Amino acid sequence: MYGMIGKMVAVQGKRRELLDLLLETVGDMPGCLSYVIHEDPADENAIWITEAWKDEASHKASPQMPAVRAVIARARPLIASFGDHVITRPVGGHGLGTAR
Amino acid sequence: MYGMIGKMVAVQGKRRELLDLLLETVGDMPGCLSYVIHEDPADENAIWITEAWKDEASHKASPQMPAVRAVIARARPLIASFGDHVITRPVGGHGLGTAR
Repeated sequence: MYGMIGKMVAVQGKRRELLDLLLETVGDMPGCLSYVIHEDPADENAIWITEAWKDEASHKASPQMPAVRAVIARARPLIASFGDHVITRPVGGHGLGTAR
Repeated sequence: MYGMIGKMVAVQGKRRELLDLLLETVGDMPGCLSYVIHEDPADENAIWITEAWKDEASHKASPQMPAVRAVIARARPLIASFGDHVITRPVGGHGLGTAR
């Protein structure tokens, strides 16, 4: 498996709009086992995303999907910055859905 | 929902043993929607855990479960340190299982 934990910061006041956009495509990415979007309660503009994928290739392919590409284009003006991210190797747990 | 993203570092050479222990109880915590355990590919002793719970009360109650308590007791000598953790508010996504 392949995973990522990352943070992004919305443009001031745009977090809800950005969240709604990100939630649009989230159930529909081949090879995606988990993709959970979190608000940061300590920062009104920050979002955390925790991901688990079947493999790195699935993760790399997702931004090429037309639906995901369209969301990225609409999301970009709502993103102020990206924080650190960590690449991980998920080993198991609860809530790892079935990949399409 | 209530979430957490955290890191722990195993005692040198004990990560696999610690992972196996943590995986033992992971499907069985009431109110737990997602609990994914990740290796850190950049640090041979580090583990990341990403969690989503129905609410904060479920998260706080889990260490009181006898099975979880037993695992914590066995895990403690295998843990060298805890890294930073972030408390989150999951808003949705893919792979949020059903809570017991």
